Amino acid sequence: MAEEKTELPGSECPFQAAMDLISGKWTMSIINTLMGGTMRFKQLERAVTGINTRMLVKELKLLESKELVHRQAYATVPPTVEYSLTEKGRALQPVIVAVQQWSGNQM
Amino acid sequence: MAEEKTELPGSECPFQAAMDLISGKWTMSIINTLMGGTMRFKQLERAVTGINTRMLVKELKLLESKELVHRQAYATVPPTVEYSLTEKGRALQPVIVAVQQWSGNQM
Repeated sequence: MAEEKTELPGSECPFQAAMDLISGKWTMSIINTLMGGTMRFKQLERAVTGINTRMLVKELKLLESKELVHRQAYATVPPTVEYSLTEKGRALQPVIVAVQQWSGNQM
Repeated sequence: MAEEKTELPGSECPFQAAMDLISGKWTMSIINTLMGGTMRFKQLERAVTGINTRMLVKELKLLESKELVHRQAYATVPPTVEYSLTEKGRALQPVIVAVQQWSGNQM
């Protein structure tokens, strides 16, 4: 039997490496929402249709580790946390516009 | 305790509905590869870096159900199957170009 090709991380292919960063279910919707500017957690949760608290917490941690989102905590009482796009995250604007155009024409 | 917002299907938001169609880990790499033209399974498996047989079978079924890929079977002996992009799949070209430019500039 031909040896089963093991699934390698896609990083060998630059395109797949890019998709690995942005292909999470909610990733691009969160980035699209933050294009509007800095937001707090509850604002984001209300703005991203369909997401719940647990999923948003997980996705924001992932986005921060991928350097697409910046997390800023303030030592207020109670503490406040704000999320904004990094330069790398904001540079996804053309991808978002292309998806919006495809969605408008094809769906 | 504030009632936990259940995770709804993103379909209420057109952008999220579009991302639901294209945000699979290998989805856009398969579509990008088929931009080159009709291919058979083994050609596709070799061309999509890092994917394995089981994953490609699963993704192609999904892509067919989402009307992004067309599957054409021929009653040859043994039977041959070819995959190509539908018009809806081919219309993702600008999204692919935008991801490639982002990847080139940001990674």
